[in-house]
Amino acid sequence: MPEFSPTFRQDFDRLLRWRRDVRRFRTDPVDDTLLQDCLSSFRLAPSVGLSEPWRLVRVKSPAARRAALENFEQANAEALAGYSGEKARLYAGLKLSGMQESPVQMAVFCDEETAKGSGLGAATMPETRRYSVVAAIVQFWLKARTEGLGVGWVSILDADRLREDLQVSDGWKLVAYLCIGWPMNVTDTPELEHVGWETRNASLDLLER
Amino acid sequence: MPEFSPTFRQDFDRLLRWRRDVRRFRTDPVDDTLLQDCLSSFRLAPSVGLSEPWRLVRVKSPAARRAALENFEQANAEALAGYSGEKARLYAGLKLSGMQESPVQMAVFCDEETAKGSGLGAATMPETRRYSVVAAIVQFWLKARTEGLGVGWVSILDADRLREDLQVSDGWKLVAYLCIGWPMNVTDTPELEHVGWETRNASLDLLER
Repeated sequence: MPEFSPTFRQDFDRLLRWRRDVRRFRTDPVDDTLLQDCLSSFRLAPSVGLSEPWRLVRVKSPAARRAALENFEQANAEALAGYSGEKARLYAGLKLSGMQESPVQMAVFCDEETAKGSGLGAATMPETRRYSVVAAIVQFWLKARTEGLGVGWVSILDADRLREDLQVSDGWKLVAYLCIGWPMNVTDTPELEHVGWETRNASLDLLER
Repeated sequence: MPEFSPTFRQDFDRLLRWRRDVRRFRTDPVDDTLLQDCLSSFRLAPSVGLSEPWRLVRVKSPAARRAALENFEQANAEALAGYSGEKARLYAGLKLSGMQESPVQMAVFCDEETAKGSGLGAATMPETRRYSVVAAIVQFWLKARTEGLGVGWVSILDADRLREDLQVSDGWKLVAYLCIGWPMNVTDTPELEHVGWETRNASLDLLER
């Protein structure tokens, strides 16, 4: 059984503390070997029934990137329209995606119809397949961070429209749109806390039954 | 900006390779300080709009544990009834939860109605709140593994019935039921692969658009 040293555990905590949702990227490219190495963490993620339902689409062509960016801009404008007063002012000033500039962008889907795993564990809670995709994304996110790369998760999108624009199967459900690249800066404070949108809870509540 | 050493990165890969979904636990207790330390990783997870929608319920009383176990046993019997032939024979022999014996058990919910984060990022894809809870679970899972603890995720449950049995708010959606404790054994091969239910893909497909 592999053991992990106190030094490793300390650095692992540091990794969790300094992982960030990055929205400000430098435009210099990410080496493809490094990207592939980080993406290999997907294959080590837990998945319900070993269904491995993650499906990755690299959004690379100018047309595909434009469609995704316009999708975000429209959804973001609609979201802004839902706020008023101080919150609207704050929201309008937020930078919520690095889709303009991040060199690598990836749409991550869940194949809802995969036969792999033969449905094990997904009868009562089929959403667990999508959760498996999230697990893989989180492992990738942390792994990328160990290499100095930043990852930003964009959820302000019309998921059906993106699926159509990227021409992927109807049975694939969008889980996340990831911006990946070298971060402009790194901090241990979430940007939404820094700008005064929201604060982190001071503690974790734990009910008991 | 914190950097991570080659040694750390190597050990991080080892952590991903040896993280397992554990279903066979020793019954000796988990020190509460250690458990709390591992749970602290929840607070470092990414969450949409900084909504921190995770809600944890430790399932501790004999009555609550019995209700959860019966829930699993019924859902598992129904799942078995959905297979035939060789798959049914295989399924019947699988150990799919450590709910009989794992000393610590935790139901993890998503508060779908939290006002925290003011809905930022959750207008078009409200499921991102649940994904935030998954992200926190994965961070906890890895952190627990660095301490030698095993975690098993049970999804073969009637989620509504569990919510009622645990008497939590209607607005909380079950994301996972976690069994936590000292694993009987640790391997780098998923149990479902070991018993011949399913195999891991040899590579990760990456589409390009």
